[in-house]
Amino acid sequence: MTTTPTTLADCQARDAQDPLRALKNLFQLPQGVIYLDGNSLGVLPAATPARVAQVVTGEWGDGLIRSWNSAGWFDLPQRLGNQLAPLVGAGPNQLVCTDSTSINLYKVLSAALNIAREDAPQRKRIVSERSNFPTDLYIAESLARERGLELVLVEPEDVLGALDAQVAVLMLTHVNYRTGAMLDMAEVTAAAHAAGALTVWDLAHSAGAVPVDLQGAQADFAIGCGYKYLNGGPGAPAFVWAHPRHASRFWQPLSGWWGHAAPFAFTPDYQPAEGIARYLCGTQPILSLAALECGLDTLHAADALGGMAALRAKSLALTDLFIELVEARCAGHGLGLATPRAHAQRGSQVSLTRINPDDPNGPSGAYAIVQALIARGVIGDFRRGDGAAHPDILRFGFTPLYIGYADVWHAVEHLREVLDSGAWQAPEFNQNHAVT
Amino acid sequence: MTTTPTTLADCQARDAQDPLRALKNLFQLPQGVIYLDGNSLGVLPAATPARVAQVVTGEWGDGLIRSWNSAGWFDLPQRLGNQLAPLVGAGPNQLVCTDSTSINLYKVLSAALNIAREDAPQRKRIVSERSNFPTDLYIAESLARERGLELVLVEPEDVLGALDAQVAVLMLTHVNYRTGAMLDMAEVTAAAHAAGALTVWDLAHSAGAVPVDLQGAQADFAIGCGYKYLNGGPGAPAFVWAHPRHASRFWQPLSGWWGHAAPFAFTPDYQPAEGIARYLCGTQPILSLAALECGLDTLHAADALGGMAALRAKSLALTDLFIELVEARCAGHGLGLATPRAHAQRGSQVSLTRINPDDPNGPSGAYAIVQALIARGVIGDFRRGDGAAHPDILRFGFTPLYIGYADVWHAVEHLREVLDSGAWQAPEFNQNHAVT
Repeated sequence: MTTTPTTLADCQARDAQDPLRALKNLFQLPQGVIYLDGNSLGVLPAATPARVAQVVTGEWGDGLIRSWNSAGWFDLPQRLGNQLAPLVGAGPNQLVCTDSTSINLYKVLSAALNIAREDAPQRKRIVSERSNFPTDLYIAESLARERGLELVLVEPEDVLGALDAQVAVLMLTHVNYRTGAMLDMAEVTAAAHAAGALTVWDLAHSAGAVPVDLQGAQADFAIGCGYKYLNGGPGAPAFVWAHPRHASRFWQPLSGWWGHAAPFAFTPDYQPAEGIARYLCGTQPILSLAALECGLDTLHAADALGGMAALRAKSLALTDLFIELVEARCAGHGLGLATPRAHAQRGSQVSLTRINPDDPNGPSGAYAIVQALIARGVIGDFRRGDGAAHPDILRFGFTPLYIGYADVWHAVEHLREVLDSGAWQAPEFNQNHAVT
Repeated sequence: MTTTPTTLADCQARDAQDPLRALKNLFQLPQGVIYLDGNSLGVLPAATPARVAQVVTGEWGDGLIRSWNSAGWFDLPQRLGNQLAPLVGAGPNQLVCTDSTSINLYKVLSAALNIAREDAPQRKRIVSERSNFPTDLYIAESLARERGLELVLVEPEDVLGALDAQVAVLMLTHVNYRTGAMLDMAEVTAAAHAAGALTVWDLAHSAGAVPVDLQGAQADFAIGCGYKYLNGGPGAPAFVWAHPRHASRFWQPLSGWWGHAAPFAFTPDYQPAEGIARYLCGTQPILSLAALECGLDTLHAADALGGMAALRAKSLALTDLFIELVEARCAGHGLGLATPRAHAQRGSQVSLTRINPDDPNGPSGAYAIVQALIARGVIGDFRRGDGAAHPDILRFGFTPLYIGYADVWHAVEHLREVLDSGAWQAPEFNQNHAVT
């Protein structure tokens, strides 16, 4: 932390010296918007409109059915998987982009349970955090129910203690969607393995946001999202990874033709492909896959500038700055910090708690604050809490590809003005918000 | 059948009198192409490029995360489902567009098995046709394996005889992908129900191709494809329907957040939505969904011209004409008819078998014929056979929205010329073909 208060001029000077600054030009950000919600939906890459138009009019319109081969549609899940792999520490041909995170979780959790229980059928537990993203818990609940297993949900601090001889699979999200708290994947995986359990990691808020080393951590399975930090567009296909030691063991239950060993032989019986290809199922939405490729390109544009390590350093600098400025300039307004201060435990977002300083038991005002910020062009989002232990949250994602230091200054200034104005005393949360 | 041979002038006269003829202008067909593969990938609607561009640059680029509400992304699966519903005899709010056909089949087959076996656990069989589309069989094989059930595959003529007190679910494709043979959905469903079994129908080659009356047939569950006759684009999201009497019974196992009763409450436990919404799972690829909407619009453009009944009448006229012309003009070249002549048993395609007249046991030449036709701009496709009972097939789909009578004439002329030229004696099938 600085001892002299940081000024706008300081932020502008840091922008001027930032070697990643030009990456912002890879995106089409609307005028007047400071977008702190890339953790929910990444910004449109500038290359995407032309690429999608080419797929629509050229590959589909002119190429028609021939484009399955001539335009490489059939290889897209693998090709995109290989582009994504180095960003998460996966090797070549270990990862495919396909389907949704929920569906990919069903596939890998099913496989992980089969593998873990093959030699230890007494292991009947899936352990996860109660604060894990709900859809992950729903999928685990479904598999547990189908198979007569048990889903055990614990508080974050109790995860390691819950690893015993009854646990088959530990299913965790690497960076928590609410708080932005990041787990030590290698340490937690080692603890799970020591207890005889396998790990399934959700990288929805990690891929493209923080360095991930799946192979280095000896992780077992992973899934993640294409539309957040990977900038793949709304509902972009997700991804799935299996460590090579597991990839060809067991079918995953969504045994569609695209995961068949010989998909064009049209044999009536299923024979899974070797390796990660067996985690494919049905025909994929090519337009959305094509857009995801442009998103991956934006991450690789940083390769020559230091890659994920450089992005991570800037992300931490941005979140440090945001925390510093909020604490210095928005004091006395009931804000707290939900995201860990320790760099090793922080993702690429900052979540602020809010308790009404005039009425600690009353409405938090967090939703109204977020709405007032959005009206000013500062887009973050709101996550409802569920009581004193989990207060309402204002969530701000910092994507170093397109957010600068002065953006952080201005965002905090808008927050300060909203808080000072009393605009947060507006009606409470009453809208849907279809994002994680 | 005519007694005077049909001429090109006759075909042109029929085009001139065809009230559906102008619908072709709704599409961007490449110059010089006669596209007889709409049963595999429908043609690009003329409205799609602008619509997709608007979603990319306007809704995503400018609207960003706000578009989940402001652009109605969150309601797209239901909205598109309601547009599709009348084309397949489904009621309002009974159908959603989402995921892939394989994944949707997994959902409904799982639910159908649960319902059928709730009061009759002794029913352990899924019955299907051996010639059903392979991915359907793979999904059924997976569910049977997981649950200790039996997948029984029979020849088409043995389906009704296989319906006994051991059968839980009869899973069929309404129009066979190879032969174009169409089943009587009402009759087969009634037979299944009489035997105490439920029905799951795959409408991949039916939706938008032939009139379907799911409610009238008292069908139980159905799934289908968005990228064939619905013109939704490569890998367009699929659809899923459940009869209201079943829709809210049992979870489907892919219990993702989008199928939750309160998806924004973020509760840790799963509570399925009422009705068809519980068949949603994860976040959907919005760009591909938006393109599907333009495809559905092309079908509804026929509403004022007689709708599916008028499209069906033209489809039958086109396939009748094709059969007539092939038989009249391509005789002696070893072609046979795999598709039923009876209208009530025919989908919107004609499949020709091919046996080499010079060497009945040698290579059929069917693949080379299809390739030679494609080189001439007549795009159909090839399906490998598996022995004398199922010879190699040349498959031609007739989409009345954009195919005319003169197109049929020219296609047959090209076929005749290819056969006469001996060009079919080229190397055998050696390419992938990623389509159904």
